[in-house]
Amino acid sequence: MSDRIYGYAGRVLRINLSTEKVKEEPLSKELIYGYLGGRGFNVRRLYHEVPKGIEPLGSRNKLMFATGPLVGIGLPLGARLNVTAKSPLTGILGDSNVGGHFAAEMKYAGFDQIIIEGASRRPVYIYIHDGDVEIVEAEGIWGLSISKAYDIIRQELGDWRIQIAIIGPAAENLVLFSGIFFNVYRPAARTGLGAVMASKMIKAIVVRGDGYVEVARPRDFERFVEELEEAIYAHEQYWPRRSMGTSRILLAANRLGFLPAKHFTEPVVDYAFKVSGERLAIEYNVKNRACFSCILPCSRFYVIKNGELAGTYGEGPEYEALAGMTVRIGNDDLDYALKAIELANDLGMDIISLSEVIAWAMELYERGLLSRKETDGLDLSWGNMEAVLRLIEMIAYREGFGDLLADGVAKAAKRLGKGLDLAFHVKGLEMIQADPRGLKGYGLGFAVASRGADHLRSEPFIELSDNPDVGRRLFGEPEATLRLGVRGKGRLVAYYENWCALVDSLEVCKNIAENMEILPPSKMVEALRIVVGINMSVDDIMKVGERIVNVERAYIVRKGIRRSDDMLPRRFLREPMPKGPSAGHTIELERMLDEYYRARGWDPETGIPTVEKLEELGLDYVIDDLMSHGIRLKKASGSRQSSPP
Amino acid sequence: MSDRIYGYAGRVLRINLSTEKVKEEPLSKELIYGYLGGRGFNVRRLYHEVPKGIEPLGSRNKLMFATGPLVGIGLPLGARLNVTAKSPLTGILGDSNVGGHFAAEMKYAGFDQIIIEGASRRPVYIYIHDGDVEIVEAEGIWGLSISKAYDIIRQELGDWRIQIAIIGPAAENLVLFSGIFFNVYRPAARTGLGAVMASKMIKAIVVRGDGYVEVARPRDFERFVEELEEAIYAHEQYWPRRSMGTSRILLAANRLGFLPAKHFTEPVVDYAFKVSGERLAIEYNVKNRACFSCILPCSRFYVIKNGELAGTYGEGPEYEALAGMTVRIGNDDLDYALKAIELANDLGMDIISLSEVIAWAMELYERGLLSRKETDGLDLSWGNMEAVLRLIEMIAYREGFGDLLADGVAKAAKRLGKGLDLAFHVKGLEMIQADPRGLKGYGLGFAVASRGADHLRSEPFIELSDNPDVGRRLFGEPEATLRLGVRGKGRLVAYYENWCALVDSLEVCKNIAENMEILPPSKMVEALRIVVGINMSVDDIMKVGERIVNVERAYIVRKGIRRSDDMLPRRFLREPMPKGPSAGHTIELERMLDEYYRARGWDPETGIPTVEKLEELGLDYVIDDLMSHGIRLKKASGSRQSSPP
Repeated sequence: MSDRIYGYAGRVLRINLSTEKVKEEPLSKELIYGYLGGRGFNVRRLYHEVPKGIEPLGSRNKLMFATGPLVGIGLPLGARLNVTAKSPLTGILGDSNVGGHFAAEMKYAGFDQIIIEGASRRPVYIYIHDGDVEIVEAEGIWGLSISKAYDIIRQELGDWRIQIAIIGPAAENLVLFSGIFFNVYRPAARTGLGAVMASKMIKAIVVRGDGYVEVARPRDFERFVEELEEAIYAHEQYWPRRSMGTSRILLAANRLGFLPAKHFTEPVVDYAFKVSGERLAIEYNVKNRACFSCILPCSRFYVIKNGELAGTYGEGPEYEALAGMTVRIGNDDLDYALKAIELANDLGMDIISLSEVIAWAMELYERGLLSRKETDGLDLSWGNMEAVLRLIEMIAYREGFGDLLADGVAKAAKRLGKGLDLAFHVKGLEMIQADPRGLKGYGLGFAVASRGADHLRSEPFIELSDNPDVGRRLFGEPEATLRLGVRGKGRLVAYYENWCALVDSLEVCKNIAENMEILPPSKMVEALRIVVGINMSVDDIMKVGERIVNVERAYIVRKGIRRSDDMLPRRFLREPMPKGPSAGHTIELERMLDEYYRARGWDPETGIPTVEKLEELGLDYVIDDLMSHGIRLKKASGSRQSSPP
Repeated sequence: MSDRIYGYAGRVLRINLSTEKVKEEPLSKELIYGYLGGRGFNVRRLYHEVPKGIEPLGSRNKLMFATGPLVGIGLPLGARLNVTAKSPLTGILGDSNVGGHFAAEMKYAGFDQIIIEGASRRPVYIYIHDGDVEIVEAEGIWGLSISKAYDIIRQELGDWRIQIAIIGPAAENLVLFSGIFFNVYRPAARTGLGAVMASKMIKAIVVRGDGYVEVARPRDFERFVEELEEAIYAHEQYWPRRSMGTSRILLAANRLGFLPAKHFTEPVVDYAFKVSGERLAIEYNVKNRACFSCILPCSRFYVIKNGELAGTYGEGPEYEALAGMTVRIGNDDLDYALKAIELANDLGMDIISLSEVIAWAMELYERGLLSRKETDGLDLSWGNMEAVLRLIEMIAYREGFGDLLADGVAKAAKRLGKGLDLAFHVKGLEMIQADPRGLKGYGLGFAVASRGADHLRSEPFIELSDNPDVGRRLFGEPEATLRLGVRGKGRLVAYYENWCALVDSLEVCKNIAENMEILPPSKMVEALRIVVGINMSVDDIMKVGERIVNVERAYIVRKGIRRSDDMLPRRFLREPMPKGPSAGHTIELERMLDEYYRARGWDPETGIPTVEKLEELGLDYVIDDLMSHGIRLKKASGSRQSSPP
């Protein structure tokens, strides 16, 4: 096999918009062995190239796109991409993962990673085709909605196979939770990367290529894909997922009692079916579409067929958007929820964060803490969707009260000087649509995630099995896999954080891979042997995940994050769940955190990785760097590792 | 509520074809309370009106169609019909249940039950519309395939809302496992009822009506339907069933190791995916269709899009037909299986029985026990589908070797004087597509079922949960719900037999109702209160089920059936399962039977119901009748009842 690199495009593209210089760099084998791809590649570089003190919306921030070795080769779940920068929303790690067709096309255009540096002085889009880079004037489409600008670029380039990453008006107005959109409807939504792209005056990045990616063992690969496809088709979750994507979670969350209804005051609602993915699938959906080379077309297109909003159409929504524009803001009208989601998408915002700023404002309004004068005349009663539609526009264009919310809930509460306890975020990133009092491993995950309150950094879905045998077997603790259990959650979350970092670096679909019987780590090892031609063990690849988690932790530790920031909003710690199957529960965060740091080999007092752990992971550059920033690293005493299943 | 009968059409239609006399009878309340509907109505009458000694294909046999109180009112799972007669295949109870749209239309035409007596001397079809009956000459369509004859009748009557029960050439040639077909593709297939219809020279029965059925409490009914619909939509099985119907069982059966491949010699095969419902759904299916008023359109239409059989289309197939024309006969070519199923349907045969006679002949042929001369030149090697297609025609038209097989496997083996041990039937009815060595409750069910080897009389699906807690809770025995368990199976099967008889009498869909959370007996009680306006308890309705099972047992006991007939073919009792997850198992039938008769309150020596049991069920007419036939009824000593969940 020698020096030939299989599975990767093999090159990194660096574009400096200030100087308009374009550079190509080879992909090093050290980077591959240490970080595998996508999220790992990006954070490794971000750690080096975006040091402490960089202004997220300044020209020295860097915006990185990277994909992984299992993408663009025809593997059913290989289509993902990570976008990374310092986050303007949180001031710490900005990172978001997205599917669709961009990642594969980027590899065909010749690159595993694209790094954008500097900033343009005028609006541009970047057109990358078969190794060539054009920086194209984009004054004419700046200000346009995502769908309009997307259409114009497609028409201008006259090539229907281009793939486009694009931002909308919200990003241009530097809404701090604006996203970057792919295939019109698929955002790299979280942590405000749209604003970073806008700060560099980039409306869009277009990729197109006729290259291809060679796999190391083509015959084995054919068999591997066939087996994987059969396993996916035969999986009991195939048809529900194909029909509903993640939107089916809404009814399940209602059944288990962890919905975020009315800003996390109602874990169950009696109108769940009306706003469910089931109803959406039966009454609204018209066709399906898959990510690149996937055989589980879980993305659905809907049309509102009747009523005053008839004719509204779009892709999705997934659970987060659906619950965000229904239960979280007290809305039981599915049509209006779809309309709001479509509007927020077209303006280019993260609907999770959007749903929190609106729900937060509504709770203040309903409690009489926010006056109609302060809202610029909007009646923010629960579920008032006319006001919500107007507010979404006001946020995207930073008009009046919308300007306050456009900075995210943490900054908005601070600026308003009210509702600080009700601002539901961790480290500045707004919480997702699950009440952690009913899903405690997720709660711990929100508290410690490297980008703030989010499930996608650990996704300990296995606690939903509520099967103590699984917990006993995998983590030596039956409670670990009970959703209302406490013991063992530290190990559970540490393990799944490593696993998620691995999945995000191979750039495979978390939703499919999380069915461990379909792509368990042993199969990932096989895939790497067949596709890349490298022999790594399960321990080796899980170690890559752990390395990435530790680099991310070091990145935010350098910025000042400590154990005291690994926190959840007061409601979840102090107010018992009011009703439903999780009634009476709060979340025992400190106990879980103690166990988590132990499992991680981090100092439980500060939450800083120990020297031993960083050495074990070969992260001497991190040790040197943290020490150069005056951060004292402890030696571990009796630290334990997370136990892998 | 007084004397008004809700939920039922309230009338019984009796047509004598010998005399061409038509009579209407009122539906008695005694019959309703005692038997509820469909299967219960039919067997109650059959017991009386078709006494011992009647020739199944003679004019004194009666053919009965009956539906139930939950049909034709808009309930999502209410669309079923039972067809009953003395069986020409088995000489005992002939009975088959079918879905589609006929049952509802029959009620709109004014009747809960139709009884056909006597025989016509020339081919006719019967046209029943809004209470009127016409006996129409049918010489022109006699001999035609089902789809052709069906089209001609529809054109002739010029009314697209008619519903048709029809037979094909196989029935006309008195193939003993010919069925009656509804909506072209849906047969009341088992026990040879097509031949009974043909013996009366009836090509088709057409129903059409503009009547309607009133429910007792319309407002409660609306709420009940809404709740039921939401429960069905929200059920995790909704999408797999909608996408695959029962065809998805094939892969599951392969996974658990109880496929009947190569005539029950291979419980697992390596080509399962190639012939799976999953592949059918992904590559062949083009649209879905539901039974009357159902919201789970589990019936699928397929088209073969490529290859030499491109253009072949049809409805289904369900698991039984799919496995019957693939694994059971050693065929791994899905296209040819679909073609064979389509042909067998159009000629009008039960594919379960058909698959057994072919597989039986193939096993003999492969073992050298059957020569090519005996098969009229057909090479009956496993999976030779050209020979199979030819053989299907030879059976339907009773040509040569086909004539032998047309009598069913039991008679064929006897006539041939070979392969008696390899003739896989119970009481003359061919076994379904599940190896009872891997599914022991089903095995017991085959042995004791009132119509012969069949799952639909008990369907103890719950043993597939393999969850001992469920068995302990419901039947006081953990093994009861382990598919390879033995203890508790008697109680399990007795309970589910009662339950199936109840479901077949309400005429609701067993596939939906078996998800107990959707229509558990408590909900059936509620439905009866709302629809019929009668207050029965769960015990009351389960007792109706038990009563029906006992009348059926008495019917076959009167014909001579005893414990020694509650038997399985030798292979399942003596030859251990050769491989796969059920390897090494045989079926411990006698132990299970002992427990079963005890649970039933039947004499374990003879398998005849005890006096106490018959008295308890109010079946004094059965006691009198059996005694008048010289059958000694024991008093029970220490008999136990089946324990309901």
